[in-house]
Amino acid sequence: MTRITHDQATTIIAGAFTKGAELSLKPLGVVVVDAGGHVIAYQRQDGASTGRFQLALGKAAGALFLGMSSRKIADMTAERATFVTSLGPVAPAGVIPAAGGIIVVDADGMAIGAVGISGDLSDMDEACALAGIAAAGLTAQG
Amino acid sequence: MTRITHDQATTIIAGAFTKGAELSLKPLGVVVVDAGGHVIAYQRQDGASTGRFQLALGKAAGALFLGMSSRKIADMTAERATFVTSLGPVAPAGVIPAAGGIIVVDADGMAIGAVGISGDLSDMDEACALAGIAAAGLTAQG
Amino acid sequence: MTRITHDQATTIIAGAFTKGAELSLKPLGVVVVDAGGHVIAYQRQDGASTGRFQLALGKAAGALFLGMSSRKIADMTAERATFVTSLGPVAPAGVIPAAGGIIVVDADGMAIGAVGISGDLSDMDEACALAGIAAAGLTAQG
Amino acid sequence: MTRITHDQATTIIAGAFTKGAELSLKPLGVVVVDAGGHVIAYQRQDGASTGRFQLALGKAAGALFLGMSSRKIADMTAERATFVTSLGPVAPAGVIPAAGGIIVVDADGMAIGAVGISGDLSDMDEACALAGIAAAGLTAQG
Repeated sequence: MTRITHDQATTIIAGAFTKGAELSLKPLGVVVVDAGGHVIAYQRQDGASTGRFQLALGKAAGALFLGMSSRKIADMTAERATFVTSLGPVAPAGVIPAAGGIIVVDADGMAIGAVGISGDLSDMDEACALAGIAAAGLTAQG
Repeated sequence: MTRITHDQATTIIAGAFTKGAELSLKPLGVVVVDAGGHVIAYQRQDGASTGRFQLALGKAAGALFLGMSSRKIADMTAERATFVTSLGPVAPAGVIPAAGGIIVVDADGMAIGAVGISGDLSDMDEACALAGIAAAGLTAQG
Repeated sequence: MTRITHDQATTIIAGAFTKGAELSLKPLGVVVVDAGGHVIAYQRQDGASTGRFQLALGKAAGALFLGMSSRKIADMTAERATFVTSLGPVAPAGVIPAAGGIIVVDADGMAIGAVGISGDLSDMDEACALAGIAAAGLTAQG
Repeated sequence: MTRITHDQATTIIAGAFTKGAELSLKPLGVVVVDAGGHVIAYQRQDGASTGRFQLALGKAAGALFLGMSSRKIADMTAERATFVTSLGPVAPAGVIPAAGGIIVVDADGMAIGAVGISGDLSDMDEACALAGIAAAGLTAQG
């Protein structure tokens, strides 16, 4: 397992949407990117705002950029807000400091991609990202 | 009603300027954008500073980006300042967290565009945006 | 019909991939955007290069930017190469002058979105875009 | 006369649209900017594509950037294409090398602003820009 396949990416998105429906969440945007932060698949549910793609991508690619979940990046803002803000202009897809961006790892713990979700409260977005990763039989970074 | 027409856009701007005159406000810049954040019409009154266009657009397009008024985005900065700041580099027209950017919706509550105003206090800017939308017989997002 | 729905977007992508398989094409990246050029859905087949997203998006959003297919923009380069090149820095998602970006229109001929494909020869990319649009029962700009 | 007023800007746009109607042109986007290239007013007719703002602005602000009409910049591409292309990334609003961007001058020949139009053939765009400037009693750069 060295990369997330196209089939796995669409399974992740479907799993995330299923979780969102179970939790009666607002319409979501869900992106799956490869280890380089490049988009494999994205879907935006009807009614989600236009910026959901950039938000989801900024969570997923931003997580890979720093090597930690976007929740940990959000936590980092408590003491290092200016540092986190400084990343936006230099990270190709920005860094969005809010839960919902999760790195997917292989058996050795190496990143093989990431999932980013935006649309509801960030805790809910993250729950859907984890559900999607599990639905595809993949492993979220611990 | 699925898009804001050219005639409606100029009516919105005229309505906003009328409100500004009633309230004896400073010179304003008023923009009307379509659902994708693309400019339909803009006018800047004599004496308004050169950046009013970017400020008005960043309120209007930023509101569409997140799916909420720029006042709500401003409110969000109280607890999530770094998150809001992180949006600037990834939103095509930026996200300006100050009242004065209002989404216009159709009968189903779907966004068909937005209005953004900058020039006076942001509460005043917003009052003019709402007046302009009403003048055109359109509906502001609740 | 005033917008491309999430279901229609995934149907367009599936239809494009079916056509690509029929024609034994190289792996494709297929994007569907709304009338404002914002991504509704994207999928990249295994083996497609990392830049397929930007290429597909630059075809689709670039077509909407100018109001014509990316094939017509490519044709325009024969006599106006510098003009076409000048669009890149001012178009939010760039303008890629190669066939494969097609505007989707409603009954009145107004743009409701666009499809962009990159991966094989641009003529093949375009054939898949047209097949995807037809699969969803939508209409390509004439 | 040292600046284009708000009233003059809206008169220019109305004059340009009148000319476009006389010539049965496609829907236009018309921008008026001040001497610094900052937008005073813009209007986009129904049916004009989303990129008309950037195209019109890139003609008007690009003309001011180099101190000559966008037609002359277009002519310059015959022998200096790479030079013109190099301007895009460094000019704040880009430089669009196509007729339709005209500098407005005062009695001393100093620039007080510019008009940019996009929507039909560039020769037609330019005819409307000149008509708009004349309608406002202003003077186009010779």
